[in-house]
Amino acid sequence: MKNKISNIIVTGAAGFIGSNLVDRLLASGYQVTGIDNFSTGQRRFLKGALAYNNFRLVEIDLLDLNALKYSFSGGEIVFHLSANADVRFGTDHPHLDLEQNTIVTYNVLEAMRTNGIKRIAFSSTGSVYGDAAVIPTPEDAPFPIQTSLYAASKSACEGMITAYCEGFDFQAWIFRFVSILGERYTHGHVFDFYKRLKTDPFHLTVLGNGKQRKSYLYIQDCIDAILLAVNKATARINIFNLGVDDYCEVNDSIGWICDELGVKPRLEYTGGNRGWVGDNPFIFLETKRIQSLGWKPRHSIRAGITKTVEYLRTNEWVFEARG
Amino acid sequence: MKNKISNIIVTGAAGFIGSNLVDRLLASGYQVTGIDNFSTGQRRFLKGALAYNNFRLVEIDLLDLNALKYSFSGGEIVFHLSANADVRFGTDHPHLDLEQNTIVTYNVLEAMRTNGIKRIAFSSTGSVYGDAAVIPTPEDAPFPIQTSLYAASKSACEGMITAYCEGFDFQAWIFRFVSILGERYTHGHVFDFYKRLKTDPFHLTVLGNGKQRKSYLYIQDCIDAILLAVNKATARINIFNLGVDDYCEVNDSIGWICDELGVKPRLEYTGGNRGWVGDNPFIFLETKRIQSLGWKPRHSIRAGITKTVEYLRTNEWVFEARG
Repeated sequence: MKNKISNIIVTGAAGFIGSNLVDRLLASGYQVTGIDNFSTGQRRFLKGALAYNNFRLVEIDLLDLNALKYSFSGGEIVFHLSANADVRFGTDHPHLDLEQNTIVTYNVLEAMRTNGIKRIAFSSTGSVYGDAAVIPTPEDAPFPIQTSLYAASKSACEGMITAYCEGFDFQAWIFRFVSILGERYTHGHVFDFYKRLKTDPFHLTVLGNGKQRKSYLYIQDCIDAILLAVNKATARINIFNLGVDDYCEVNDSIGWICDELGVKPRLEYTGGNRGWVGDNPFIFLETKRIQSLGWKPRHSIRAGITKTVEYLRTNEWVFEARG
Repeated sequence: MKNKISNIIVTGAAGFIGSNLVDRLLASGYQVTGIDNFSTGQRRFLKGALAYNNFRLVEIDLLDLNALKYSFSGGEIVFHLSANADVRFGTDHPHLDLEQNTIVTYNVLEAMRTNGIKRIAFSSTGSVYGDAAVIPTPEDAPFPIQTSLYAASKSACEGMITAYCEGFDFQAWIFRFVSILGERYTHGHVFDFYKRLKTDPFHLTVLGNGKQRKSYLYIQDCIDAILLAVNKATARINIFNLGVDDYCEVNDSIGWICDELGVKPRLEYTGGNRGWVGDNPFIFLETKRIQSLGWKPRHSIRAGITKTVEYLRTNEWVFEARG
């Protein structure tokens, strides 16, 4: 991603991470092709991007391989961020993770191959470690056992991507995230808690026992890490955990959200150590590898949650947009 | 698989491992439903099975989810052995592993769920360890990086299966094989060497440098292990490496095949330490876990190769059948 790269493709460009990345790339002077089908992406997230002459928006479904091949023409690197991104509801519709993550990623790889594009940055997840045997979890943790269809599909994508590196001389940067928070955050438990507390500030149902330990990373810190890695990591396959050196309990995050909103709800727990089927009760990633490149997150978990609540407070339209 | 199980479903029933398993199950008195589309499976492999009253053959394509759901009716456990089984040619047709392994396995899981079948035995591969960091490789080896589309797809299947265990209360036995040899063996390098030496006994081209180290397991030893594990291992998710406590070089196996055939070809190497793109130059699995259940292979690698050559010699029709 030195200056010689002129055309960057971003899938899921109207999504939470995608649109923030697009804004950063455009601000740095890159030519960006953003792809989205707006199934969950938001047009309003691209308002700033669309003001740039060097931004091209392509509205297609990534399941349409021919359209995808056509749209990738001239690209030099693909940031593949499009996904069914909510880990929690896999068992409600088992086909969705297979289709939107595994099959779509295959299509992205094939569209790249057809167009001679060989560099891909991919948003995976810390959930690929399953119920991790080692915590904080390093990138070479013991062979995981997948607990959710979401993580299984992300792991499947990683496998195809690295096989393309071996078989077709691709180069890949794979990022295993903790949960990302911040501006344009539109799903996950902070989103849900906020929404429900606005409706009923006196009562909040919490999935599990509230003691699930999670780690969160602020979106701009996440994008700093992605761009740094793509610029600096030169192996054929580069895999990085992204997260902060800290974690909190779900109960902590509820406390911070309530402080921000000035409410004191009665909490009711559904019980059990998992928030949902396949939930990993403790996600905390070792991030020495990305830190060795010179990156450090600049925002604490609490700061990320506070910024998220501030964003939601001034952008309540996202609740309507998400139904 | 105590006697209370009366209806066993085997996918890929006309394949190498499938047909041998079907024969063993029928000989033990089980009711077996064999499913195959005969794309690579052989009708002649089921000749013995079809003589049993308690064998039912269903000829459908596993990509047809509705047909699959219908055919699974009444099943109590599924041995899912159908696959695109040749690791070597993934880059010639990248879609095949995704379709025949990943998507078909999703269909199998959904057909099971629809029919209330919760037990699945699955043929994975030792290739899921990629270029293994630890050799002999245990089941909890470090997080692998996939090098072939075949292994990536098998790993994807494993992930979906374990997510179904978590999400839908399935129970799974996952077997990571070394290469399997023996009666009805119809693909892989022993097959290819034999076929080419019959055509030209004076000359043999060897992929790579011939020093790739591989391990092989004889089919009946493999089936012993599978049946033992399904009967004895009672965890929700049971993952077993299957192999022998030994390995050989490709050059060794060529020598044994040539001895059997009484030929002395001039060997020509294509060079490099991999036999093909994505080939793992050293596959040798730790099998303590399956051995702790009381299993031991009864045939050496050389015995397995010898038996395979004997089989091919008396069944040269398989070369025609495979084109």
